[in-house]
Amino acid sequence: MKRKNGKISNAVIRRLPRYRRYLRELQKQGVEKISSNDFSELIGYTASQIRQDLNNFGDFGQQGYGYSVDGLYEEVSKILGLDHDYKMVLVGAGNLGQAISKYAMSIIDQGFQLCAAFDIKPELAGKKVEGITIYPYEELESYVSENQIDIGIICVNKGNAQEVADKLYSAGARGIWNFALVDLVVPEQVALESVHLADTLHSLAYHMNDIRRKSSGAEGKKK
Amino acid sequence: MKRKNGKISNAVIRRLPRYRRYLRELQKQGVEKISSNDFSELIGYTASQIRQDLNNFGDFGQQGYGYSVDGLYEEVSKILGLDHDYKMVLVGAGNLGQAISKYAMSIIDQGFQLCAAFDIKPELAGKKVEGITIYPYEELESYVSENQIDIGIICVNKGNAQEVADKLYSAGARGIWNFALVDLVVPEQVALESVHLADTLHSLAYHMNDIRRKSSGAEGKKK
Repeated sequence: MKRKNGKISNAVIRRLPRYRRYLRELQKQGVEKISSNDFSELIGYTASQIRQDLNNFGDFGQQGYGYSVDGLYEEVSKILGLDHDYKMVLVGAGNLGQAISKYAMSIIDQGFQLCAAFDIKPELAGKKVEGITIYPYEELESYVSENQIDIGIICVNKGNAQEVADKLYSAGARGIWNFALVDLVVPEQVALESVHLADTLHSLAYHMNDIRRKSSGAEGKKK
Repeated sequence: MKRKNGKISNAVIRRLPRYRRYLRELQKQGVEKISSNDFSELIGYTASQIRQDLNNFGDFGQQGYGYSVDGLYEEVSKILGLDHDYKMVLVGAGNLGQAISKYAMSIIDQGFQLCAAFDIKPELAGKKVEGITIYPYEELESYVSENQIDIGIICVNKGNAQEVADKLYSAGARGIWNFALVDLVVPEQVALESVHLADTLHSLAYHMNDIRRKSSGAEGKKK
């Protein structure tokens, strides 16, 4: 894979999982190749946007042939780092953590393995969540370092989330999937992805009101 | 509230819930006003970015005084449409839907009320999820229209999500919070917010690999 120099924008990175999802669907339907126009129509980005996005990583597709579905799927997977496995732990096995691990286990790829859960409440120790054992919070660091855990899923209260992130880092985890409603600070060696569900609901509310305002404005003009 | 003309970019909208979260924290700490520099340091955007963002909606803050925390919190809430209530239904009360409603109920504002759940499986009818009754899927449209439901939370399989979105729209719901791993098509009267959790995990994997590549490159140069 030819990789061009320079920083690839976050917007491009965020589109890659979507490319991959659509390519996976095409694979399942037995489609072997797709023209850049058909792919554009399917995915909802312009053909030029797609070319630009993928050109960040190398030359894909052939003039007059289009994209090879298998080839592009594998390349995008490789770019995303999904060609190897990740070991994960869940920190915070309360309602939120149980919900997230249940959700995560139901949708994520085989390449992500949830190995253990941790909680500060002693009464949860030894219980299971989604078949995964819950350990006392004190054992987090030794477990992460001994089992070479890659990713920590943070589902604790926002007041404790930064401490958990610090512990995960010092024990060797290099990825944090954060669901606590707080913005974490992590060293540059650590990748952080925060999912603020409440923010997405608030953003939905904004758009609903925006549409309502515009349509009542339009009606006003008609009168 | 003075609203400027023109389309406000999605990037600005996505930052608003974050402003609101930080203002809420300041309120809780009893802070009444904050300088634009302090606010910038707290939230991690530049002071000029903050000014630019908020100027989309009107003039906030006073020269030499900074921002009034209460005032700005209320304005941002109003802009987001959080000054009135929303009635929601959950569609799909399987593992995914139960997890999402549990999660949603634990974090979202008082203004969002989950009124009912619906599922296609007859054996779930009459059961409860998070204290909310599950009704047969056939009753979705009549319930939404009779109870003037605002928002539908879609947690069904991706193959059924578009049909659910269509039914929600035809029954009068104007907001869709979609957790099915599929991109929905909705009329322009409907606001749509899709949360693709798997995408965020894949994006995390990308950044982990990107950091690893860069640091091994840097080490290579040291040798």
